[in-house]
Amino acid sequence: MKKIINNANEVVQEMVEGIAAAYPDAVKQLPETSVIVRNDVPVKGKVGIVSGGGSGHEPAHAGYVGKGMLDAAVSGEVFTSPTPDQVLEAIKAVDGGNGVFLVIKNYTGDVINFEMAAELAEAEGIDVEQVVVNDDVAVEDSSFTTGRRGIVGTVLIHKIVGSMAEKGATLKEIKAVADKAVANVRSIGMALTSCIVPEAGKPSFELGENEMEIGIGIHGEPGIERESLKSSNEIAERLAEKVLRDLDYSGSEVAVMINGLGATPEMELFIVNKKVQQILKDKDIHVYRTYIGEFMTSLEMAGCSVTLMKLDDELKALLDADTAAPAFR
Amino acid sequence: MKKIINNANEVVQEMVEGIAAAYPDAVKQLPETSVIVRNDVPVKGKVGIVSGGGSGHEPAHAGYVGKGMLDAAVSGEVFTSPTPDQVLEAIKAVDGGNGVFLVIKNYTGDVINFEMAAELAEAEGIDVEQVVVNDDVAVEDSSFTTGRRGIVGTVLIHKIVGSMAEKGATLKEIKAVADKAVANVRSIGMALTSCIVPEAGKPSFELGENEMEIGIGIHGEPGIERESLKSSNEIAERLAEKVLRDLDYSGSEVAVMINGLGATPEMELFIVNKKVQQILKDKDIHVYRTYIGEFMTSLEMAGCSVTLMKLDDELKALLDADTAAPAFR
Repeated sequence: MKKIINNANEVVQEMVEGIAAAYPDAVKQLPETSVIVRNDVPVKGKVGIVSGGGSGHEPAHAGYVGKGMLDAAVSGEVFTSPTPDQVLEAIKAVDGGNGVFLVIKNYTGDVINFEMAAELAEAEGIDVEQVVVNDDVAVEDSSFTTGRRGIVGTVLIHKIVGSMAEKGATLKEIKAVADKAVANVRSIGMALTSCIVPEAGKPSFELGENEMEIGIGIHGEPGIERESLKSSNEIAERLAEKVLRDLDYSGSEVAVMINGLGATPEMELFIVNKKVQQILKDKDIHVYRTYIGEFMTSLEMAGCSVTLMKLDDELKALLDADTAAPAFR
Repeated sequence: MKKIINNANEVVQEMVEGIAAAYPDAVKQLPETSVIVRNDVPVKGKVGIVSGGGSGHEPAHAGYVGKGMLDAAVSGEVFTSPTPDQVLEAIKAVDGGNGVFLVIKNYTGDVINFEMAAELAEAEGIDVEQVVVNDDVAVEDSSFTTGRRGIVGTVLIHKIVGSMAEKGATLKEIKAVADKAVANVRSIGMALTSCIVPEAGKPSFELGENEMEIGIGIHGEPGIERESLKSSNEIAERLAEKVLRDLDYSGSEVAVMINGLGATPEMELFIVNKKVQQILKDKDIHVYRTYIGEFMTSLEMAGCSVTLMKLDDELKALLDADTAAPAFR
């Protein structure tokens, strides 16, 4: 295992300290936690937005903490849900009196731990609402999930609910728009290589020198099928087809996200994008905005994902609103 | 070789088309070239800013085209300087009547080809000035370079000259500030693994399972020494020491950039950052702003670089000015 780390058991704590040290004017670490919050929390009167999950998906989630996006991100151990007490600390830190909204990726551990934290917070008098993101169309149930997994589409949900909260929306209003956004976002990924969890020290799975896997999860959970490596155009077609078959996008405007999983050169993401844009054009689907880069990774996994979100005027304006979050672009 | 590509001979052309397709509201491809320009060039009265170089370093350089940064980026073949005719097309496209400024990384091919293009443009009546960036402190001469190589510090130069041009500075004013910025920026990189040039189809060099190389170039050019893999803290110390020994930063304010070379998880960049910030604090060097992520890569090379730029009030304001370039954050 070749990694630029000090101790495999302390990567998350050191990373969180490194994030706080990078952006001291914008964020801080809650003492004795793995929670990164905006410097100015709680923002009085604003609904607080909290997300998080296992580490290893950077810049998700702490890179999205900033004005106009998340108020707090809770980092669990690598590929491991954060504990309820950590999530509770985040909720308490960001409650400005009008409640806190949680964005949860659909993994059994995350759902249980965030919901437990929500109950504890409500017992302390804090209103909490939530949305569970399940954008991955690959498989219905998986190693760590009942129902569909939540993957990189979650970043667009962060942006949307963060923008709403910033302009003063109530918890109930945010919940309604979050539900709408989740209902309109679909993603699917593929991998060329495994990743290596630092504590494990070896690849999470094996893919042969000429193999790829379609529909793989961001923790290396099994996808739809393992097959011989195809061209970029064929991969783009396969991914787009799965997404387009799952929701009727005809005649609509969409946001497109081509996400790198960690080790794939951005050059390749743009080559995938070229084909995805052609496919959408051929189907008269209008692309409102395209996001390309690493938004939610799987450590050093090589691969990519394609996300489409169907947009209305409200969602477009929320995606376009300013944010100070360092990793959103 | 596992890559998400169609044809190893066409990756640059397909990438450039994919970039244009991603950001049609902001940029366009100059027909029959590998040049990406701002949609609104030439901007009348504004000095045009042109950069570029070999491909494989994405998001450099085309990701930095946008209001407040570059007017044009010229993409050569992978790790190969763009030809003078391509650079000339870029210069002609962005000249708004007040001249064009070139930001060149110090590689022999780039310097020759950009300078030849500048002469051709001047023959057509366009004023051209330039700066050659040579921030890499690792080695004096290298495979493709006489003198020090230009690496990721170039991105900060893009930002600085782009901000100046946007607020109406003249070619001469831009040249003076660019020279000052280049004189105050230093970088050094290290790698854990090689990259694979698509047309070559095999790793550019070999590093053993427990080896790393300090001072490596962004095309895999030899560095200072190959040695056994060290901890993140030791790597941060080695890199910071080389930079700090090369310029007197004591008592000054600096911008810090921790850049990923392609396959290194952002988690590891933050762990490196934690130590770099401690080192600077211990030396009473004040960090004004920190940039972390992939700014100039070497395809899928695993590794990172550390950059420090000494700042005055003018450079701080220029770094902080708004830009619409999609890859700058």
